[in-house]
Amino acid sequence: MKAFYHKSLWTLFLILLPYLGWSQGEHPNLVLTAKGVEDLRTNLGKYPLLDKTFNKVKTRVLQALDEEINIPIPKDPGGGYTHEVHKQNYKKMYEAGLLYQIEQNDAYAEYVKKQLLGYAAMYPSLGLHPERKSSNPGVLFWQGLNDSVWLVYVSQAYDCVYDYLTKKERKEIEKNLFRPIVKFFSEQNVVNFDKVHNHGTWMVAGVGMISYVMGDEEMVQKTLKGSKLDGQSGFLKQLDELFSPDGYYTEGPYYQRYALMPFILYAHTLSHRNPELGIYEYRNGVLPKAVEAVLQLSYTNGRFFPINDALKEKTYNTAELVYGVDIAFTHFGQDAGLLSIAEEQGELMLGEEGVAVAKAIAEGKAKPFNYRSLELSDGSEGKNGGLGILRDGDQKDQLCLLMKYSSSGMGHGHFDKLSFSLYDKGVEVLQDYGAVRFLNTVQKQGGRYLPENKTWAKQTVSHNTVVVDAQSNYKGKQKVADKLNSEMFFTVFEDPKVQIISALDTTAYEGVKMQRTMAMISKGEHQKPWIIDLFRVNAEEEHQYDLPFYYMGHKIDSNIPFKIHSNQWNTMGDDHGYQHLWNMAEGNAASHLASFTWLQNERFYTLTSVANTETKYFMTQLGANDPEVNLRKDSGFMIRQPKAKAHTFLSVIEAHGEFNPNAEYTVNSESQLKDLKLLADTEEGSVVMLEDNSSQRWVLMIANQDAAKESKHTVTANGKTYEWVGPYQLQEMTSEL
Amino acid sequence: MKAFYHKSLWTLFLILLPYLGWSQGEHPNLVLTAKGVEDLRTNLGKYPLLDKTFNKVKTRVLQALDEEINIPIPKDPGGGYTHEVHKQNYKKMYEAGLLYQIEQNDAYAEYVKKQLLGYAAMYPSLGLHPERKSSNPGVLFWQGLNDSVWLVYVSQAYDCVYDYLTKKERKEIEKNLFRPIVKFFSEQNVVNFDKVHNHGTWMVAGVGMISYVMGDEEMVQKTLKGSKLDGQSGFLKQLDELFSPDGYYTEGPYYQRYALMPFILYAHTLSHRNPELGIYEYRNGVLPKAVEAVLQLSYTNGRFFPINDALKEKTYNTAELVYGVDIAFTHFGQDAGLLSIAEEQGELMLGEEGVAVAKAIAEGKAKPFNYRSLELSDGSEGKNGGLGILRDGDQKDQLCLLMKYSSSGMGHGHFDKLSFSLYDKGVEVLQDYGAVRFLNTVQKQGGRYLPENKTWAKQTVSHNTVVVDAQSNYKGKQKVADKLNSEMFFTVFEDPKVQIISALDTTAYEGVKMQRTMAMISKGEHQKPWIIDLFRVNAEEEHQYDLPFYYMGHKIDSNIPFKIHSNQWNTMGDDHGYQHLWNMAEGNAASHLASFTWLQNERFYTLTSVANTETKYFMTQLGANDPEVNLRKDSGFMIRQPKAKAHTFLSVIEAHGEFNPNAEYTVNSESQLKDLKLLADTEEGSVVMLEDNSSQRWVLMIANQDAAKESKHTVTANGKTYEWVGPYQLQEMTSEL
Ligand SMILES: [Ca+2]
Ligand SMILES: [Ca+2]
Ligand SMILES: [Ca+2]
Ligand SMILES: [Mg+2]
Ligand SMILES: [Mg+2]
Ligand SMILES: [Mg+2]
Ligand SMILES: [Mg+2]
Repeated sequence: MKAFYHKSLWTLFLILLPYLGWSQGEHPNLVLTAKGVEDLRTNLGKYPLLDKTFNKVKTRVLQALDEEINIPIPKDPGGGYTHEVHKQNYKKMYEAGLLYQIEQNDAYAEYVKKQLLGYAAMYPSLGLHPERKSSNPGVLFWQGLNDSVWLVYVSQAYDCVYDYLTKKERKEIEKNLFRPIVKFFSEQNVVNFDKVHNHGTWMVAGVGMISYVMGDEEMVQKTLKGSKLDGQSGFLKQLDELFSPDGYYTEGPYYQRYALMPFILYAHTLSHRNPELGIYEYRNGVLPKAVEAVLQLSYTNGRFFPINDALKEKTYNTAELVYGVDIAFTHFGQDAGLLSIAEEQGELMLGEEGVAVAKAIAEGKAKPFNYRSLELSDGSEGKNGGLGILRDGDQKDQLCLLMKYSSSGMGHGHFDKLSFSLYDKGVEVLQDYGAVRFLNTVQKQGGRYLPENKTWAKQTVSHNTVVVDAQSNYKGKQKVADKLNSEMFFTVFEDPKVQIISALDTTAYEGVKMQRTMAMISKGEHQKPWIIDLFRVNAEEEHQYDLPFYYMGHKIDSNIPFKIHSNQWNTMGDDHGYQHLWNMAEGNAASHLASFTWLQNERFYTLTSVANTETKYFMTQLGANDPEVNLRKDSGFMIRQPKAKAHTFLSVIEAHGEFNPNAEYTVNSESQLKDLKLLADTEEGSVVMLEDNSSQRWVLMIANQDAAKESKHTVTANGKTYEWVGPYQLQEMTSEL
Repeated sequence: MKAFYHKSLWTLFLILLPYLGWSQGEHPNLVLTAKGVEDLRTNLGKYPLLDKTFNKVKTRVLQALDEEINIPIPKDPGGGYTHEVHKQNYKKMYEAGLLYQIEQNDAYAEYVKKQLLGYAAMYPSLGLHPERKSSNPGVLFWQGLNDSVWLVYVSQAYDCVYDYLTKKERKEIEKNLFRPIVKFFSEQNVVNFDKVHNHGTWMVAGVGMISYVMGDEEMVQKTLKGSKLDGQSGFLKQLDELFSPDGYYTEGPYYQRYALMPFILYAHTLSHRNPELGIYEYRNGVLPKAVEAVLQLSYTNGRFFPINDALKEKTYNTAELVYGVDIAFTHFGQDAGLLSIAEEQGELMLGEEGVAVAKAIAEGKAKPFNYRSLELSDGSEGKNGGLGILRDGDQKDQLCLLMKYSSSGMGHGHFDKLSFSLYDKGVEVLQDYGAVRFLNTVQKQGGRYLPENKTWAKQTVSHNTVVVDAQSNYKGKQKVADKLNSEMFFTVFEDPKVQIISALDTTAYEGVKMQRTMAMISKGEHQKPWIIDLFRVNAEEEHQYDLPFYYMGHKIDSNIPFKIHSNQWNTMGDDHGYQHLWNMAEGNAASHLASFTWLQNERFYTLTSVANTETKYFMTQLGANDPEVNLRKDSGFMIRQPKAKAHTFLSVIEAHGEFNPNAEYTVNSESQLKDLKLLADTEEGSVVMLEDNSSQRWVLMIANQDAAKESKHTVTANGKTYEWVGPYQLQEMTSEL
């Protein structure tokens, strides 16, 4: 009896062996887990947002079940028929798999099974895609990237129906479909598998996830440490290099949103399967930081800051960030501000995390997202400059300034060193153009980036920053730009009276040092903080310095006696973006201050800048040399210092008043700035004086070369000496000063 | 005992006499009545919108009570200090009076009393206002119009505190303030008192209301029938002449909204005081019709159609229409659609009507306002042409077309004969420019109409209609325009497949007959109805015919091989508005159809028009010869037939597809119109053929000179004969046709 018992146990163990061990485990256990399934089953019908998401998925899956299964031989490039069908197929399998787990209705599993067997029947006969891209060829799709995304979804679908399939079915599917795909990626396409690049992340995520399902531990290790298992590539190296220590992805938020997706999905899988890795704590929690960073890189309207190639309309209400938000809420500290974003997203991740978010929302726990002033360093070591964000006010009416002093952002980067954008009252006020592209629109070159993206949107003059000699940064050479970056100088976020970002660049123009200090001064009496823009340029040779501002509203007034070009418009130049600007008007200032007021979104804005007799002003409109009318007809105001070695642009931007055409009143349509002076401006420091209409005067002192907290600064100009300690000092002006 | 009894009764009667009779009556009994007071008292605290309104008023009144009473000697013109103070004073008195009636707190009545006694103390010493306007001088204000408005409000305030005041106080106030004002209006300023004009309406309303309070029956009669009591002027004559039988006010909705106010307030008073007048039934209920008309003259975003001088931002959420909506709901038939407008207005009339509306809203009775297709005739007899409105779809996504074939609209009229505007998905798609004016904005000429209002906005070329020989209608002469008008031809509102407006003009250009037929065809398969625009022009001499379309979006595509003006822009002409248009591009069509697609508000629009070898096309942008940048930089697409006696512009406008940059998909960005032909086009009738991408063909036959229902039409062209009965016929095309 004992022997028999032992023998049977041993037999049982042998039978069960494939189902035990770390790699085989239970199913599903990638992004969706047994706990997730249990949470979903017990909580459906309780929380509106959960039910809404579930019903949307179920509607789509029921529709898929009604259709013939269609697995065409790959033929068409992106956007073409077979491309779209294979894209639809992975989504359908994925959602049918989810639904099978939740409802345990065999029809869903049958659907996934038929799809998988169909793919397994076709795959061995396929070679490389006929329209393949050379850099990363695919089999099912023209790009290996698409094959990787397919695998990320389909491995989850397979995981969901794993237990439903017979051993024979699994064997067939793995042998003819998944093993060949894994082999293709990890051997034939190993260059991309080992790339420390977003395409590599999708690939290792897909391979890793299917390898967990198939129990291929060695392959999982390769996804983590690279094909040579030397740690020089793979997921961990990607986590090391593709984000800065603050979680910033160098291409900017528009691409960060997309790049995050495979990181989150695979990391979440790893958090279940290899918890000892502590993947969410990896690199001081770089992934949680990356999720917060991408959200902080949006304005209160949910739109991402459109730096580099970016579509302005893109918001955080995007499928990719549903995972990020739900996982972050559930596992990174229950931040109630994430719940309001989940509400706006209007859908959830179907899993433990979605249930947790739905429950918390139903319990009324949602709060506005905690937008804050912050800096995000760029570069894997955080040493390649970064982005600085200043904010004032709540979600309803927030003044927000973004300054960019990062590295270039690779192929999608713009020549926008030290540029800034300004937002207020829910909209852009001083813009970064974004990208010239009409996504997915056939008539606009099929939705590709248009020629003017390069000739205008990437050029320096399309940004709110200094252009030297009417040329772009690095003379417009991307390869040079890729190696260089601006630098942070100092930031101030905690002073209730003033917030500051100060950064500099010595790389964009040979022999030219540029330093920009932007401050938001909250004087209290005014509707909105005033923005000080102190832009110092220094060179050994004489140059022309242009500083454009692209405002979004309608010009209301200016004290500049502009000569308007009434009957004929000509361009501002021939290249570097100037060929796209119409010269509407030009003039020299009538006094030491030049003001320009515009109206936007029922609020007035005035930019007042210090002028000298040389300073020239232009009003511009975008749209010259634009044969297909790809550009918007945006307005610009440009300050030009025609010839100088050193020049400092000092400006103040005020948001003021209200234009209410419906209730028919207008208040404070005029600036409240009475005077603005640069009292001193040396290598050591600059001293700015502001006076408002009530004759209150304030002085802001800024260090220019030593930002240490304890450093003492002494600057003398016009017989007066100004002294302060630390990077800045703001004070009311007294007679002694 | 009997004698004593009789004598006492007699004495009592004598004592009471002044308080009985029609004229003395109870107080308040103008717009607010005893029933209104009772309703307010018993329903406060029950309905959110009522409480919100009440609290706003009370907050303002409590603040007024805290301030010193300030009644300055009139000195400043509109916008100036004394002007603003006297405006504030009448509002404060009015609201304090209301509050006294509701809460019976003597502090409110005391406030009104002090103001009234203050005015009574000052008024006798005043002459005409030092800054008076010559046409309608005032005493308290520069314009008599403002004095009239003051009186409309203050008579209500006086009525509210009448019973609180002592007889002596009343005597003083009437003798030194109200009687002199009435005398001033009805004698010294009798020209305006007797004017059949909106200024006259404010004046008779004010005089009538105070006369009711004072018991001056004869003066009330003068307000109704004119100073000579001959019915040639006064309120009833104004009702006869200032509205068309359909309730349209010839200046257009922007001014109708304002003009309605004194009509409604005084009519409501009359409905209480002289119910036998049946004022709301007067002229077949022209006042109720006028309230509905002004609401129908808005789009689903609440904005009024900006025909003539009009600010585009103006919506029905305006104080003037709160009275109109609440009275209309309560007394003209409980239209639940008015409740949703009241909700959007966010405030109520404090009276019986406001209570009724608040109650109905609280009971959940509000429905979307019933926007419908309709015609509004112009002219006191309804014979001066009019406006036609076609609508398709509900509040969320309504396609709406407005065509204007009315008289000119007096001093605020535009030279816009047969022009149209198109709205879709909540916004303007093909625009009427509106007015060039930045209301109340000091830097823009103090908020006045700007020079470009005359040189651009009024001109024919700024409208979506034909311009003959690059000149405006009537050569831009307002006095000629004032006497002439276009004419209705026929309308079709009830056919589920097609709605039509057809109108003509023989007055705008000497020797030129213009006829425009616009149809909305609902073929069912398409996302949105297609719009057919058939614009026939006939002249004895050869002319140049331009037909511009001012679209609001971004150009996406065109099959016209445009020559783009890349490096230099010049103007389209020198006068009649052409001097403000930049010529961006020009070209001739490449085939018999010219298409132009733009993107707006995430939807595509394509205008396809029939071309011949002579037809020229222009892309334009607004903003030339605009020294102060008063104009928007709007885009235009212009069709030009350079030289023809007769020409017919045939176009189809499609709304199609979706551009979703956030979810990153685009569908149906291309037109679904495959072919468009003018099969026949004679004086008798026109035959239009449309074919869509699925090769379905439809034919629309339109009568051109006889729109009678029973008339038979036979038109022969290219060997084919088309026959139909009535003004139009729409049918699927078969081979026999
Ligand atoms: Ca192309
Ligand atoms: Ca007439
Ligand atoms: Ca000015
Ligand atoms: Mg940019
Ligand atoms: Mg000016
Ligand atoms: Mg107009
Ligand atoms: Mg094209």
